[in-house]
Order: sequence, then C-alpha cells, then structure tokens
Amino acid sequence: MIEVAIVGGTGYTGVELLRLLIQHPLVQIKMITSRSKAGIRVDELFPTLHGKTDLIFEEPNQAALKKCDVVFFATPHGVAMNYIPDLWDSSVRIIDLGADFRLQSIDSWQKWYKTEHSCPELLNEAVYGLPELNRELIKTAKLVANPGCYPTATTLGLMPLLEQVDFAVEKIIVDAKSGLSGAGRNPSMRTLLCEASEGINAYAVLSHRHQPEIQQTITSVTGKKIPLVFTPHLAPMIRGIHATIYVSMPGVAQMADKITALYRSRYQQEPFVSVLPERSEPNTRQVRYSNLCQIALYFDLENDLVIIFSIIDNLIKGASGQAIQNMNIMFGLDEKTGLEQVPIIP
Amino acid sequence: MIEVAIVGGTGYTGVELLRLLIQHPLVQIKMITSRSKAGIRVDELFPTLHGKTDLIFEEPNQAALKKCDVVFFATPHGVAMNYIPDLWDSSVRIIDLGADFRLQSIDSWQKWYKTEHSCPELLNEAVYGLPELNRELIKTAKLVANPGCYPTATTLGLMPLLEQVDFAVEKIIVDAKSGLSGAGRNPSMRTLLCEASEGINAYAVLSHRHQPEIQQTITSVTGKKIPLVFTPHLAPMIRGIHATIYVSMPGVAQMADKITALYRSRYQQEPFVSVLPERSEPNTRQVRYSNLCQIALYFDLENDLVIIFSIIDNLIKGASGQAIQNMNIMFGLDEKTGLEQVPIIP
Amino acid sequence: MIEVAIVGGTGYTGVELLRLLIQHPLVQIKMITSRSKAGIRVDELFPTLHGKTDLIFEEPNQAALKKCDVVFFATPHGVAMNYIPDLWDSSVRIIDLGADFRLQSIDSWQKWYKTEHSCPELLNEAVYGLPELNRELIKTAKLVANPGCYPTATTLGLMPLLEQVDFAVEKIIVDAKSGLSGAGRNPSMRTLLCEASEGINAYAVLSHRHQPEIQQTITSVTGKKIPLVFTPHLAPMIRGIHATIYVSMPGVAQMADKITALYRSRYQQEPFVSVLPERSEPNTRQVRYSNLCQIALYFDLENDLVIIFSIIDNLIKGASGQAIQNMNIMFGLDEKTGLEQVPIIP
Amino acid sequence: MIEVAIVGGTGYTGVELLRLLIQHPLVQIKMITSRSKAGIRVDELFPTLHGKTDLIFEEPNQAALKKCDVVFFATPHGVAMNYIPDLWDSSVRIIDLGADFRLQSIDSWQKWYKTEHSCPELLNEAVYGLPELNRELIKTAKLVANPGCYPTATTLGLMPLLEQVDFAVEKIIVDAKSGLSGAGRNPSMRTLLCEASEGINAYAVLSHRHQPEIQQTITSVTGKKIPLVFTPHLAPMIRGIHATIYVSMPGVAQMADKITALYRSRYQQEPFVSVLPERSEPNTRQVRYSNLCQIALYFDLENDLVIIFSIIDNLIKGASGQAIQNMNIMFGLDEKTGLEQVPIIP
Repeated sequence: MIEVAIVGGTGYTGVELLRLLIQHPLVQIKMITSRSKAGIRVDELFPTLHGKTDLIFEEPNQAALKKCDVVFFATPHGVAMNYIPDLWDSSVRIIDLGADFRLQSIDSWQKWYKTEHSCPELLNEAVYGLPELNRELIKTAKLVANPGCYPTATTLGLMPLLEQVDFAVEKIIVDAKSGLSGAGRNPSMRTLLCEASEGINAYAVLSHRHQPEIQQTITSVTGKKIPLVFTPHLAPMIRGIHATIYVSMPGVAQMADKITALYRSRYQQEPFVSVLPERSEPNTRQVRYSNLCQIALYFDLENDLVIIFSIIDNLIKGASGQAIQNMNIMFGLDEKTGLEQVPIIP
Repeated sequence: MIEVAIVGGTGYTGVELLRLLIQHPLVQIKMITSRSKAGIRVDELFPTLHGKTDLIFEEPNQAALKKCDVVFFATPHGVAMNYIPDLWDSSVRIIDLGADFRLQSIDSWQKWYKTEHSCPELLNEAVYGLPELNRELIKTAKLVANPGCYPTATTLGLMPLLEQVDFAVEKIIVDAKSGLSGAGRNPSMRTLLCEASEGINAYAVLSHRHQPEIQQTITSVTGKKIPLVFTPHLAPMIRGIHATIYVSMPGVAQMADKITALYRSRYQQEPFVSVLPERSEPNTRQVRYSNLCQIALYFDLENDLVIIFSIIDNLIKGASGQAIQNMNIMFGLDEKTGLEQVPIIP
Repeated sequence: MIEVAIVGGTGYTGVELLRLLIQHPLVQIKMITSRSKAGIRVDELFPTLHGKTDLIFEEPNQAALKKCDVVFFATPHGVAMNYIPDLWDSSVRIIDLGADFRLQSIDSWQKWYKTEHSCPELLNEAVYGLPELNRELIKTAKLVANPGCYPTATTLGLMPLLEQVDFAVEKIIVDAKSGLSGAGRNPSMRTLLCEASEGINAYAVLSHRHQPEIQQTITSVTGKKIPLVFTPHLAPMIRGIHATIYVSMPGVAQMADKITALYRSRYQQEPFVSVLPERSEPNTRQVRYSNLCQIALYFDLENDLVIIFSIIDNLIKGASGQAIQNMNIMFGLDEKTGLEQVPIIP
Repeated sequence: MIEVAIVGGTGYTGVELLRLLIQHPLVQIKMITSRSKAGIRVDELFPTLHGKTDLIFEEPNQAALKKCDVVFFATPHGVAMNYIPDLWDSSVRIIDLGADFRLQSIDSWQKWYKTEHSCPELLNEAVYGLPELNRELIKTAKLVANPGCYPTATTLGLMPLLEQVDFAVEKIIVDAKSGLSGAGRNPSMRTLLCEASEGINAYAVLSHRHQPEIQQTITSVTGKKIPLVFTPHLAPMIRGIHATIYVSMPGVAQMADKITALYRSRYQQEPFVSVLPERSEPNTRQVRYSNLCQIALYFDLENDLVIIFSIIDNLIKGASGQAIQNMNIMFGLDEKTGLEQVPIIP
C-alpha cells in the first residue's frame, strides 16, 4: 500500500482527492492536515464521507509527512513552497495540486502570482504533471506540479497540433467556460447561488494565471512563442470545463483529414483522452465525475482555422484525478488504478 | 409624490424595494442609508439599477428621515427598534420589513429573537401589515410591521378557514419550501451555488422564528390556540415560496364545496390573491416577479384533511411588494399602484 | 460471474443500472433489449458509457433471457407482466424495477394502474424488494418487485416506528420532494429546463401510485390500516428524494429517547441506512450518487408528533442500486458488492 | 391606441411579446392566432397571464389581420412568408420575429434555411429591424425583419468598430453563449432539465443560421467581406446571451483609447445600449428581463486584438422587446414606451 498524506484538504480539490483516494485499492491515507480544522473529524466537515473514513484533521507535522510515500498539497498557492524544501532530503515524493511549481521561470511566477517565491531553486526540479506529455519524467520525479484545470483541457486539446513541427500555427484563442467549483469553497458573494445561477460572465480577462501556464507548455512543445489569448468564463453549473480553441493555421483546407488522423493516433493509447467522432458537440456532462478528457475537431476551411472542443471535469482530470494519475505513474501502478469511474448521467 | 426613505438597502429585500419604488409612479425616493456603503452610488453596488437612479448610500440621519412621508426599514431584526422611538414624534410613517414589531408579546419576541427589545411600548402600536387581514388598520397606522415571507403565504392560505368560527380546526401542519434568496445576500458557505444547488433540505426545524408569527395570527383570528407545526425547507432556486398546508378538521367530507366557495368569495375582491381552479398544481414560477398569491385547495375526504397550496414570490408579496402595498393603503392610493407586474416565464 | 440481462434500458433507471452493473465485479451483462433502439450501440445512446461497454440494444428474445441468471426489467408498468409468465418455468430469476408486482392486491393494482393485470396469479409470488424489511424472503425469491423511489425513502423512515406493536401511530403525513429524474427521460414540456427550473410544485395530489404501495407496507408491518397522506413535489434539481414525514402518536413527549435508540439499533447492522446525529438537517446532496439512505429524527413534544427526514438518491437506493442490492442478496454475494460508491460533492 | 395582432403566440417569444404588449400603455391587442390552440384561452396556456388578458387563441384570419395597425409574426421560419403577400395591399404594417426576411439574398436564404422562399420579391422590401443601425428606415417600413438574438448581441458589440472605414478589421471570431429559452418550448430530450442543466456545449458549429445574418450586416456596414467565425454554445440557464467577440485589427495598441471613446459616443444617445466602465466583467444577469444591451471592451495590445463582451436578454432585446422597440419607431412613439423595465436580481 502506498502511504499518503494530504496537506490542506478542506477545499473542493481536497475533498475530491479524499473521495478518490478512499476508493483507491492500493492507497492508505495516513494523515490529512489543516491548521484551521485540526482536531475535527473529516466526516464532520464532509458528511458525504461518513462511514468511509475515521481520519481527523491534524496540525501539519513535517516529521510525519516525511514518513509517508507521497504527500499531496491541496493548498492555495504560496503554501506548498514553504513546506517542500524541508521535505527535500527525505524520500517522500510530492504532488502539488497548487500553483507553486507550475511555472519554470521565477520571474514569470513572481509577476503573475505577485508573491516572492521561497524556493526558486526547486522550480526546475519540478516536473509538470501532465501525463500525456511528460509520462516518462513523472515516473522518476520527486516533485510533480499538477497542472491547472484550464491548462489541462487546453493543452490536451492542442498537443497533437503543437507537436508537428511543420505546422505553422499562427495564433491561438482559447475561450473557456468553467463551473463554479473552480472558484472554491470559501464563501464569497459572487459565488452564491442567488448571484451565480441564471447568468454567465467572463472574468480575469487578459489576466488569468493559467495563461502563462498554457503559454509555457506551448513554447516548450513547439520551441516557439505562439500568440495566445485566453478568456475564462463562469458558467452556472457546479463542475466541468469546456474549452473552445480557435487555432489559426494556413493551409487547414488541405490538412483536415491529416489532422484528425493525427489526433486519433496521438491519443489512441491514452487511457483517459479520446477523440470523438466527427461533428460531435460534446457537453461537459459526458465526462462529469470521471478522469476523462474528450476532444472534438472542426475545420473552418474558408478561414484557415481549426476549432477544437476539449472537455474535462475540472475537479478530476483538472485536479485531483490527475494528481492520482500522476501518483500511479510515480509508483509504477497501472495508471488507471482507482480512476475508472464511469461518468454519471443524469 | 410620496417622499420615501429607505434604511438599510443593501440586501435582497432592499434592492427589490428600490427596483419597485423606482418604477412606482407616485413615489420619490429621497434617501437610502447604509452605514457600510455610505458614499457609494447605488448603481455601483447594483449594476441592474444603472441609469435608473442617481442615489448614493448615505449615513443614517434621523432629521432627514423625519422630513420624509414614509421610511422603510429593510434591516435585520434589532435595528429598526433603535431608530423608531426617535421618529415617533414626527409625522413620518414607518414600514418595517424586518421582524422587530411583528410579535405583539414582548416575552415571545425576546424568547424567539434572543435579544432585549428596546421599545416594547411600541409593540402594540404596530399594525401587522397583511392587507387582506388588516386593511382598515393599516390605513391609519403610524407603524406597520410587514409580515415575514412564510407567514404571508401561510396566513393567506389559511385565513378563510380560520375566520369561520364554527369550523373546528384541530391541527395545522405547514410544510414550506423557499428559494435561496430568503437566506440573504451575505456570503455563507451553505448558500454557495456549489453547496445549495442540486439538493434540498429542511432547516430550523421546530425553531424557525416565523412559527410564532403564524401562531399569533391564527390565535388573533380564531381566538384559539390551534396546534401548529411549521417546517421550512430550502429548495435549489432563487425565488419563491410554496407552502403545503395540512389542516385537520372533522367533517371535511361534507364541507368541501362550501370551503371552496368560501375561499372564492373571501378573495374575490382582493387584487393580489386568487383561488385557482380545482386540481391545480401551482408552481411558484406562476407568481414569480409579481405581488400575487395563488391558492389551490384539495380535500382528503377519508382523512378529514384540507390540503392547501399557497405560493408567492418571497421577495415581492413576501417582502418588498407587500411593503409597497401597505404604503399605497396608508397614503390612500389605489392599492395596486406600481404593483401590477405580470409574472414572468420562462 | 452472474449473467444478467436488462429489458428496456433506455430510460434513466436503465442507464443507471447499466452504469452500476458495468462496475460490479461479479456481473457480466449478457444482453440489453429495447424494441425502439434495437441495433444501436449502447454507447451511442449514452456517450458516458463510451469505452465501458460494447453492448448493442437487441430485440427482446425470451429464449436468450431464460439462459441468464437474472433479468432486470427497467420498463414502464404494464410491460414486465407480459414477459414474466413465459420465464416462469426457467431457472432465471427476475427483478422488476417497474410497478407490475409491487401491489399484492389485484384490485388495488388495477384500480391504481388503470390497466388489466395479465398475470394476477404471480402477484403473491413476488417478494417486495426492500432488503431492510424482507431480506430473508429476497434470498430465495424468484421474482422481486423492486420498490418505488418514494416508498423506499418513506418506508425506511417509518419502519422502526411501525414495527413496535405497542406504538399507537394515529396518522402519517408524508410531504415528499423529488428531483426531476424521477419524471423520466421522455421529452415533455413540463420537464424542460425552461419550465422546471427556478420553481417548485406539488403534483399527483391525493392520487400518486406510490400512496397505495406505502400503505400496503404500513399495513403489512403493523397489521393495521393507519391513515396515510402522501404529497409529492417536484424540486428543481436532477436527483434526490427528501421525505418529510409527520407521525401523530400520543405520548411522544415521554418516548423521544426511546424512539431514537430504537432507530439506531434497528439500522445499526444495515450497510446502507444510517440515523444521523440529533438536530441534523440532511440535504439530499449528502447521499447523491450512492445507495445510502439517511434518516434524521425530531420530536414535537407539544403536538405529539415525530418528524422524520429520510433522504435517498432516487435513481440508486430508489431504483437501480436497490435492484442490485436485491441481486446481491439473491445470489449470496456480500450485499454491498458494487454499491460502495461514496456520495459526491460538490 | 395601436391595434395589434399576433400570429403564432404559443412559444417563448410569443408569450414574452404578449406579456410586454399587455403592459404597453398605447397598445391594444386585438387578436392572437394559433392553429393548434384555437379556442383555448391564452391564460389557460400561460397561467402567468391570468387576470391580465381575456384573449382567446383564434384561427388565423387574413381579413381581420388587415384591419389591425400592425401584425407581429412570432412563428417559426417559413410561416410568415406565406401570409405576408396577401397582407401587402392593406395598410397593416408587419414585424416578423422569425427569419423569413432577415437575409436579403434569396440564394443565401434558401441555402441556409433549406426551403424555397415563397415571396422573394419582398426580401428587399423588408427593413432589418436593428434600431441602432436602421432607425430611419424602420420609421417608414411596411415590413420589418426583427433580428435574431445572436445577431443583435453581436452586431451591437461590433457596430462602432465596423462603421470606421479606416479600421482594418481582419477577422472576427464570435464565441457566444445562450440560455436554453432560445431553443424554444417544444419538448425535446436535449432541453430537458435532466439533460441540459449542469453542463455546457457548443452546437451548430460552423452551421448556425445566424452566421450569414451577422455576415450580411458586417458587409452592409463595411462594404467588405470580413472573415467571420461564429460558435454558439448552450449554457445551463433560462435566459441571456453573452457574446465574446475577438476582433483582429492591426494597430490596436495605438487605438485603445480612441476605440473606447468611439463606442461611448456612438451609443451615448441610445436608450438601450450602454458601454460599461473599463474592466467590467458583465454577467447576463445584469440585463435579464430588460431591453438593454451592455458592452465591455478589452484590448490585447500584444496580439492586436479587441475583445468585446456584449450581453442581452435573448427574449427581450434579442426578440420581443426589440420588436416592440421597432413598433414604437414605426408609429412615432417614444422608443422607450413599454420597455423601461429594470433588470431584476436576484
């Protein structure tokens, strides 16, 4: 059994990680920490876990964390970076669901997160935990930076295109829609049911922190800086990300079939990514409560544009499920272990 | 023009009152006060009012309030009672949308609201502002206690029955369902979209403050203390109250037609209350965004039970619309002025 | 492996049964039939099952059904009764998720379902499949009538009280609220999002077919005909049933603790039913996507009333999960097999 | 009083038109026709109109229509074109809320609507009823083609840019999100609450009929054929359109302030269109239940892109409200008459 600890498990990412790990056949959760909830039973905070766990939130304890096989950080940015240097000399492996190690450039990180980074020397040690991109590196990584939810949907939607060095991608516009769970569990007026239901709006326009994260991956894959516009929207639903990706690329008219074939072949072996039949109009409901990513391709031949739809469950493939997928890879398990939940309708 | 002031207009009741008063043809809003928002434009806090008002939230100012014709208090309980004694010697009339003057018994008020009342001598001066019950008293009232949302739906559903002294009502069970707007605009975890949508629950079981308010009206109408059980539920929607009322009464089998006729005749002249055709299954959507109350009657002949459905929009007939209806009555206007909005679907 | 067939799997109950059976470790689905969809891949109709099954809807075929270990009927009432007599002489066992065998009185069935029953002689062969009530009978049953969703929530909420012969229950009022999935997948105007969201209403008042089903169980447990009023409501959400049950019973004031203890002890060994701590206000979200039933108890001492809240997921414990629980019992498996899903939030 | 008739008033556009016309102070509704509902009271089909109208749906009757001042067609495409030629020789004026006269090219219309047009000679008689664009023409028009919902939001968002002949707009991508009411009131599986809530999807990708309508306006304003990509999405809510418009235009970096000033000045006198303060993130809720359109502007200086958000209520400014605005213009009324409803929150 893999012995795991969770640091900071009181948000939606945390409870989803707990739910999935409790059902994982090869994992034993040794501890879960929370400063604010220390001493409280986990199933008191989350009644859905009643009868499924006897865990009690504990004060963080570095010594205990070091004894585990893996520590998940389900903390806001700026927290994990304060714990990790001290864990570095132990054998424990680390998966950070937060943002502290997602950007490799210290300047970029500090600019976007408006905080001083406390261990910039570890930025290059971290492996960006998108299994479909970095599976080999993840296997041996000590520290995995679990991708953001929008970057997961977007990057999987773009990757086969970007990997073709002879494709002249000129510009990428990502118009993304997310459910409210991405905004977290802390009370705020704008996420009240009475404020957020029955309406839709864009937010963090031209200023969302997932923009540089997507940009970084595009550059690392293509070796080029391709113009990228990213506009997130909040849709009145709990879960799901729907990324509509517009890729400008000369010569699309001649390449539609080739691109489709490329996507199918690129993801054929991937357990969690699939390319839908032509003319699919995927609804985020199709992957809800699963670790799946589904992709549909359209070609605007007149305008030299590839339009890509990529959908995920933001809390699973976009966060906690992907973290477990990374753990499975790091510990040599079948990557699908504990992650084969069928999406649920209605 | 009636010159009005609003004290405390930053909640849902306040903004709804503002919206309705702005569209009222015979009203001029002179001031709106809020300690926390003083100096801020109303349309900055509520962008829906953009272009409709130039009002700015002001610090409360008793002298200015006294110069108005009427002051609406849209404040949490415990606030209005501190302002009103000082207003008493002026000519201003007062409509309290809060709970400070709804109960006439000082003991009951202090027990249920767990607060000392600062002007118990005014409790008996206040008129309980349910126009269908107290229209004559409201005309000349200096202080109107606007009813709670559940009591409005429930009392209107029960009133024709209760008024028949020869009816032997034995027990009343009210199972009520409300939208989330009744819980207010202050951020709280349990009213987040991610927590409150896709589920339903009872709350304040056997302990909701609207229970003694309903009980008081039942007693005042019947002269008897009829056992009353009141169970409110939160339904995953923004607006609406649906009260399902079970009235135990021997001899129902013989009285169904008589009771129906009684209801129709009792409300025939009422502009905002209607009795629906037989076998109606009213949905709160039918009265949404209007000042209407609709009632449907069923008779369980085997079990000597009258089942009554009563629906309202909790923010209009259950709060701000009813307050304006009271104002219209107090100032001798046509009671319907500014309140003829047609319910909106879809 | 238990070899199963599903007759009529195109509704919500059917797809939920499929989803759960696909993940059941000891089951092999041999066939699924649908006249209207014969020849179509299951994952074409239900994209969420893509990659999880290669099943194709087939024309019903009695010979093939007889070779299975168990046949689930997920059909509207009036269908299963036409198949079952022909299956009777084979060894196949039958679980009917529809209503054809829920009532033991042929007169009552024909009155409520307004249809002639085609095999009344089998009504008394059927075991009412509420495991917490009839576990022993289910073990050897050839035909299990899976209970309705409302009856499941209601009966589990009432059972410990009813089983006490010395309790003088005088009247039971069940005010129940259900999500829209109970209304099925067939297009109808009243279940459109634009019609059904943002509102709540009662329906089938004094005429819902689950009333006689609940009544029958009450009578079979108590030996008495206790007056029962049942009022279902449609709440604007997908899944969940919340039953608020008012039980009139003299002497409640003296018995509150005893009743609580009784409930705890009655359900202590039950894997799927739990009694919540005092003053719980259970939200249907707490059991969503699980086979759980949770119960909370309140006592209105003044009015000699026990108020019981009972919540389930209508498609799981209220339908397909319970059907699998019955199958597990019939085939001697651990009753929890394939049914230990943790409820999901948010 | 303007005497109006409505042909085909049983859909959401029809009932919204009815609701608004009932409250219009200078209108008298003479008749409403519906083949399928002839003989039924309007308030029986739409209980929200109970007490507000005594109208009864009638069989269409050309002679009676001709006696009215104006006829509104709230019919699916392909219906109005069969009535209108016969009305042409009368004095009645016509506002078609459907699509029959929106495209001026007969070839384009027949290609997109896959139907033969029955009166192509009238296509050029029709005035495209976007008041902010064609106010003068509308004044004297005999036949007004009321714009589609997406084209209204999109065109108002683009118009000030397009009108500048010296702006070199290179490409326009419109990523639009709509509530479900745009899909109409006819029962269909994909618009059931259980199918459409809690998810989002694109639809009619590269094939939506509003694309050529937007394209036509762009061309008529600019004299050029600017590449246009239009992707509509269904968001899980009842009302609202949110158009996110990406305009590629060299030199944006130098022109941001100028463009903002241009928008403000262009719409300064418009009663229903407003340009929001910088950095606004408009939610469709802000204009819900009103005839307003609100616009926010962002400039991506690095990528030479203007990003425009444009929001409307699809059933009001996107359909019935705009139709009434057109009627007001045609009959010389104050354009705002009957259309000053304040948006409603929560």
